[in-house]
Amino acid sequence: MKLSEIGERKIVESLLKRFSIPFDDCAFIEINEHYLVLTTDMVYEKTHFPENSKPYDMGWYSVAVNLSDIASKGAEPVAMLVSFAMPRKMDKRFFDEIIDGMEDCINNYGGKIIGGDTKEGDKILISIAAIGKVRKEEAMFRRGAKIGDSVYITGKIGKGLFIFSNEKNKILHVKPRIKEGRILAKSKKVSCCMDISDGLASSLHQLMKINNVGFEIYEKNLPVADIAKKINNGIKKAIYTGGDYELLFTIPDKYGKILERKIDIKKIGKVIEEKGAYLISKGKRREIKNIGYEHFK
Amino acid sequence: MKLSEIGERKIVESLLKRFSIPFDDCAFIEINEHYLVLTTDMVYEKTHFPENSKPYDMGWYSVAVNLSDIASKGAEPVAMLVSFAMPRKMDKRFFDEIIDGMEDCINNYGGKIIGGDTKEGDKILISIAAIGKVRKEEAMFRRGAKIGDSVYITGKIGKGLFIFSNEKNKILHVKPRIKEGRILAKSKKVSCCMDISDGLASSLHQLMKINNVGFEIYEKNLPVADIAKKINNGIKKAIYTGGDYELLFTIPDKYGKILERKIDIKKIGKVIEEKGAYLISKGKRREIKNIGYEHFK
Repeated sequence: MKLSEIGERKIVESLLKRFSIPFDDCAFIEINEHYLVLTTDMVYEKTHFPENSKPYDMGWYSVAVNLSDIASKGAEPVAMLVSFAMPRKMDKRFFDEIIDGMEDCINNYGGKIIGGDTKEGDKILISIAAIGKVRKEEAMFRRGAKIGDSVYITGKIGKGLFIFSNEKNKILHVKPRIKEGRILAKSKKVSCCMDISDGLASSLHQLMKINNVGFEIYEKNLPVADIAKKINNGIKKAIYTGGDYELLFTIPDKYGKILERKIDIKKIGKVIEEKGAYLISKGKRREIKNIGYEHFK
Repeated sequence: MKLSEIGERKIVESLLKRFSIPFDDCAFIEINEHYLVLTTDMVYEKTHFPENSKPYDMGWYSVAVNLSDIASKGAEPVAMLVSFAMPRKMDKRFFDEIIDGMEDCINNYGGKIIGGDTKEGDKILISIAAIGKVRKEEAMFRRGAKIGDSVYITGKIGKGLFIFSNEKNKILHVKPRIKEGRILAKSKKVSCCMDISDGLASSLHQLMKINNVGFEIYEKNLPVADIAKKINNGIKKAIYTGGDYELLFTIPDKYGKILERKIDIKKIGKVIEEKGAYLISKGKRREIKNIGYEHFK
């Protein structure tokens, strides 16, 4: 059977099972009173970068998506290993601009390149392994959502929809929520957290499965990016499209209200006992389906 | 200027300079009395795997080359993040056999897959970030060679020459020298160490530059793989060809002699004051040139 008939999620599931790896954005290594959190994300010219993307944006993006995983744990970035596959005919200036983008992202959000690898390849591929650090009692996980908790999100959803616009390159301008993640972590009140890189719908379903709960999401509360407002059926598309690197988290309501005053977060729903993800819109309750971006499919 | 006009080593050098990264196989993170050593190696269908390579061998090799870097520090493998780019049309069984090879290599030499990423790509690419652990006082570095030290090597050189034979797949049967590395490290007498993945000649030149010393290598002492003996000019080719994942290290002579009784190592030369790498062969002294495998060139 071909990988395209199976899909990324099933492939990953079979690997996690085989190696007894917990399903999460990051791996954890215990070091005294801290966890080192480790994550790796590979970005590839063909599947991640819109045509004619600027090298600076590619570099920025490749670092930002890794830092987003670090942010979702409440960790601060420590170090990263950066590997490139690049065509022989690539111009050195093009390469230097990729590095410029990486460096600026690191200067904005933290971390340090401490090693890597460069190899020849037909297309540009950047594979980064990033390491973060968080005190054990502050770490946020995908597991932990409690029935009755409020569901919150940072920033706005729908920025991934730039892919359908004339400003496709904007999907690469990801802002990893490191600062927000640290503030959430320090509160020690967040019950579960993940980034919504595969889309809000897919993320809710992943949290549902891990936590054995359901979600009610209020459409009127959803913070929606301007681009989504301009598009037909934009809110629906924003819910199902990947490419937003915001943090989705659950927290007891009273603590959520306190954090609202400190950072740009919005309450979008609540954790319910009934399994399923539901969108409440103008008094109607509709199912949010398990659809999102997936490789190989 | 194109990358092919610059070459991998110059590209890497410019990155190391820009990010103040020390030139080594691994990065080090201090954790109390240990170093975590981190390394990453990317292997690519087109440049690393002979045609018709077995998926099992690809998986084994991708893990083994990373563990070889860990071994060169004297560290024990702890964990790894494994990322794949794979074609949609790849058969699931082919993929499973890659994983079988990885798992067997890990079961033989240590470590644990704790996370990763899977993406779609035109060709098979495996990027691994591996983490090892070593007590600070045991860690081995590239810097440290002393004039008068003996030069040693584990195993045999020339196994990379299988690439010119009918058994090309054997270049993938890399045995990372984890056990040997640990024994060398525990002796605390090794003054510098690296693996010779780019070839013995290139490795000597790299150590020369870092340590500001020279090397005299005795041809008659070189442990040469059978494949090199069958090939015209085999010893010379073995010196200049990459693909051997042996440990090259320097150590005061008396301690080298003690270690010879414990593991398969051979004294091949000595560290000299005069800059340059020289091969002593039948009383003649010839320069070993700085030639080895390099991407983009």
